Order: sequence, then structure tokens, then C-alpha cells
Amino acid sequence: MIQYNYKFRVGYADTDQMGSMHHVNYVKYCECARWELLRNIGIPYKSIEDDGVMCPVVSMQFKFIKQATYDSLITIKTTFQWIKGVRMFFEYDFLNENDEIINHAETLLAFVRKNDWKPCRPPVQLLEVIENLQQK
Amino acid sequence: MIQYNYKFRVGYADTDQMGSMHHVNYVKYCECARWELLRNIGIPYKSIEDDGVMCPVVSMQFKFIKQATYDSLITIKTTFQWIKGVRMFFEYDFLNENDEIINHAETLLAFVRKNDWKPCRPPVQLLEVIENLQQK
Amino acid sequence: MIQYNYKFRVGYADTDQMGSMHHVNYVKYCECARWELLRNIGIPYKSIEDDGVMCPVVSMQFKFIKQATYDSLITIKTTFQWIKGVRMFFEYDFLNENDEIINHAETLLAFVRKNDWKPCRPPVQLLEVIENLQQK
Amino acid sequence: MIQYNYKFRVGYADTDQMGSMHHVNYVKYCECARWELLRNIGIPYKSIEDDGVMCPVVSMQFKFIKQATYDSLITIKTTFQWIKGVRMFFEYDFLNENDEIINHAETLLAFVRKNDWKPCRPPVQLLEVIENLQQK
Repeated sequence: MIQYNYKFRVGYADTDQMGSMHHVNYVKYCECARWELLRNIGIPYKSIEDDGVMCPVVSMQFKFIKQATYDSLITIKTTFQWIKGVRMFFEYDFLNENDEIINHAETLLAFVRKNDWKPCRPPVQLLEVIENLQQK
Repeated sequence: MIQYNYKFRVGYADTDQMGSMHHVNYVKYCECARWELLRNIGIPYKSIEDDGVMCPVVSMQFKFIKQATYDSLITIKTTFQWIKGVRMFFEYDFLNENDEIINHAETLLAFVRKNDWKPCRPPVQLLEVIENLQQK
Repeated sequence: MIQYNYKFRVGYADTDQMGSMHHVNYVKYCECARWELLRNIGIPYKSIEDDGVMCPVVSMQFKFIKQATYDSLITIKTTFQWIKGVRMFFEYDFLNENDEIINHAETLLAFVRKNDWKPCRPPVQLLEVIENLQQK
Repeated sequence: MIQYNYKFRVGYADTDQMGSMHHVNYVKYCECARWELLRNIGIPYKSIEDDGVMCPVVSMQFKFIKQATYDSLITIKTTFQWIKGVRMFFEYDFLNENDEIINHAETLLAFVRKNDWKPCRPPVQLLEVIENLQQK
């Protein structure tokens, strides 16, 4: 399993008048979490874009279980699930300070060429790193 | 069918370095769209909160089909699907200026009491308005 | 005076746990307001970027006088003040539904070339439109 | 001098189609920086709100000097300048990875009571901590 724990604090701007983190921010932090996972295995997302490939989101879903309150320290346990063809899939569990799952999310991404948004093969280097990690 | 067309222009702050609207903003605009639907049937979401009830998001999913570019005028065709018990369900189609569907979204909301976040019955007034509209 | 009144409703995602619009959103809506002013005089900001010129913010200041609450309808009275050399200056008054000024803002922008961010002359078409409007 | 260095990485959602961090995000990160400074001296902003006092922004200004690009690591050198009566003043220098100042910001905050937004005395505990630090 290729996993990474990304931590962040709920910022004041993340809250809404319900007094907890507004739901859009889960989406924002998921993106940070998956790219930190990639950085952690040696392939920062920036290097993928520098090589002319982008990874837009194709679909995403979020289940909200508990609230995240201002200033609490949240951990996103991110799991790289697979790359198949031109698609890449991640899952996320948001954990609060009591280690309770407060949100479960899934995102499907595509590999596309930066210049024309046409689907393309994932970077070879990324495929190799993942293959190596999965054989361990 | 209880529907409402909400229109917005993609703002500069909505874009990212891919050159189109960042995916978090679809979530933000869906929220505007569903509350404008409610306003349109005579029950502004604000009046629901003023009566001590809130509608946090329980789950949401988004399918991204085409990009939305800066300054383009987007229409969100929002459909109220149902209220069952303490839940309310909406669907959304994002249409670009060529009337192409660029995104399909679904959100499930809960009715909870403002003071303790416990699930509660939807406001009677809202149920009545919806019943009336559905009998037409 | 070249002015434009831009209207928006305070969205739920714009609020924070103080129960009013978070201060970052004033910055976001100012940007919408100034580009709607330009659209209104016939030069959408998009057309400026399409011609290879961008207008990043050089400096900005905001004075917060009253709160803006969820769902209230805010008007930004935007005034184009001047273009001098490679700079452009706007002022903004945010008005609430009682016509009270709730915020005063000022932004200084630069004209730069899209490819290298070097300062450049404003588009001739923009200068002409402004000159014509100021002679009236 | 009461100072704190807050670090963050420019997120993808922070960028815009100019290819660098959109200017609203400087405002968002300044807020994180000043509250981390307070946490660092032992008075988390959350504890101030828990005691019934809030610190809304009264005025703010930002000077943009250089761009911040995606994934770069930015340091905000935050300086607590003073508390006078019901006001508190901070200054901020944003530094990029080459230690260049890319932005200078100033924010003036008020102390107000949570229940009615009336100006109020700063928390005694905060005043004491600051006095102690300034005597060193």
C-alpha cells in the first residue's frame, strides 16, 4: 500500500457560520494531500507538469461524517490505489485529533497533455516508482 | 420537477494554472445554486437557519466533463429531487455557453438543529411548498 | 468619472465562524467588480489578456467599517481613477442594503507582458476608450 | 521584537491562470501566520475566542513585489508591533526560497466582544505575555 499522512490545521478562513470547516475545503486539502504523497515517493506533481503532463480531476466524491472545527489538527491518510491506462485513483480518510474518521473521499484523475488536454500515458518515471514500491 | 437555472461568470480567482476553473469552485457554486432554487420557491436558506435549522452536506459527488474557462458564463441547472426523513437531495448540471454539460453533481444534505447538530425534521413550511409544487 | 456598480450576494462559503463575510472575500469581489467595470466600457479584461497583457495587483488596501452578513446583497461602487504609465488605479466602496459604506478599498495594478511579466504600455484601445469617456 | 516565521507551500488551488499565487491567498496566509505567532507565545487565537473576544480585521494593506509560484516554499516573517487600546498591529514579510521579500503586508485588528461586536479590552493574559516578552 502506498500511503501518506498529510497534516493540516483548520484555518479561520476555512470555517463558515456553522462554526466548522466549510465543505469546499475538504476538496482543497485532498489535493494538497495527494501531491504530498507523490512528493514523498520522489515524484512531485510539479515535476509532472514540468514534463508537459497535467492531472485534472475527472470525478470526486466526499462523505462527511463529523465536523472539523477551527484550529483542530487534521490528518489525511491518503492511499494511492491504482493507475490504469490514463487514469489514477486515490482514496482519503480525514482523521481528527481523536483519530476518528470525519470524512472519506475518493478522486479519479486523468493524465492529459498540457498543450491540448488530450489524454496521454502517465510519466514512465512515475510508473516505475510505483511498480517498485508495490513489489516490496 | 422543481428546477432553477443559476448563472455565474467564472472569476479570475476561480482559475488555476491549468487555465480553467479549479475544481473546488464547482462545489462553491453548487451551494449558491441550490440556495437560489430555494429562494425561488419562497424559502430562502437563510430563513431556515433563522428558524434554528441548518443543512450541512452529508455527501457529494462531481463528474468533470469539460473545462470552464475564465469569464465564460456558466448555467447550473439545479433539480430538487426529494426530501426523505431528515435528508434532502439535489442534482446539478453545469452548462457552458454552447449548452454543453461540463459537469454533473449530486449533493445529499441533512437537516440538523443549529444548537446541537442533531438530525431534525425539515421545516413544515418547506415541506408544504414542495408538496404544492409537486402536485402541479 | 468612470464608475460601475457591481452587485453580489454574500455566499455561505464566504462566511466564517464570526458569522459574517471573511475578509479575504472582499479582495475576491473587488477583482470581479473592476473587471465588470472594464466590460461595461467595452474592454473585457479577458480581451486584454488575449492580446498578451496581464494586470497583476501591485498593492491593495482595505478598510473594514461594518460587517457583511450571509445572503445580504452588496453593491461595490467601483471608480476607475487613472492610468499613468504602466499603472492603473481603482477605488471601491462596498455598500450594504441600507446604502451604508461597509468597506473602502484601493487597488493599484500594473500592465505586464504575459510571456515575461515585464512592464508594458496599456492597450491602445483601452486608453482611447478611457480618454473618450473622460472628455464627456 | 516578537516575531514568528510561518512556512507554507503554495498549493495548486492557490494559483490562477497567470501561473502564480492569486493575490487573495496572501491575505489568507497572513491570518494563519499571525495566529501561529500567538500560539507560539502561548496564547492561541482560539483561546481568545473561547473567552468571548474576537479579532476582526480593521484595515489591511499588501505590497506585491515578486510572484510566488506553485509548490514553492514561502516563509512569512511576522512581527507583532503593538497593542494600543482596543487595537493590535502586525507586519509581515513574505520570503521566497531565495530569501527575497516578495510581499510586505500590514494588518490592524480590533478586539471586540463575541456577542455584540462592541470594542473591548484585550485579554489580560495576552497583555501580560507580551509585556514579559518585551522586557527581555
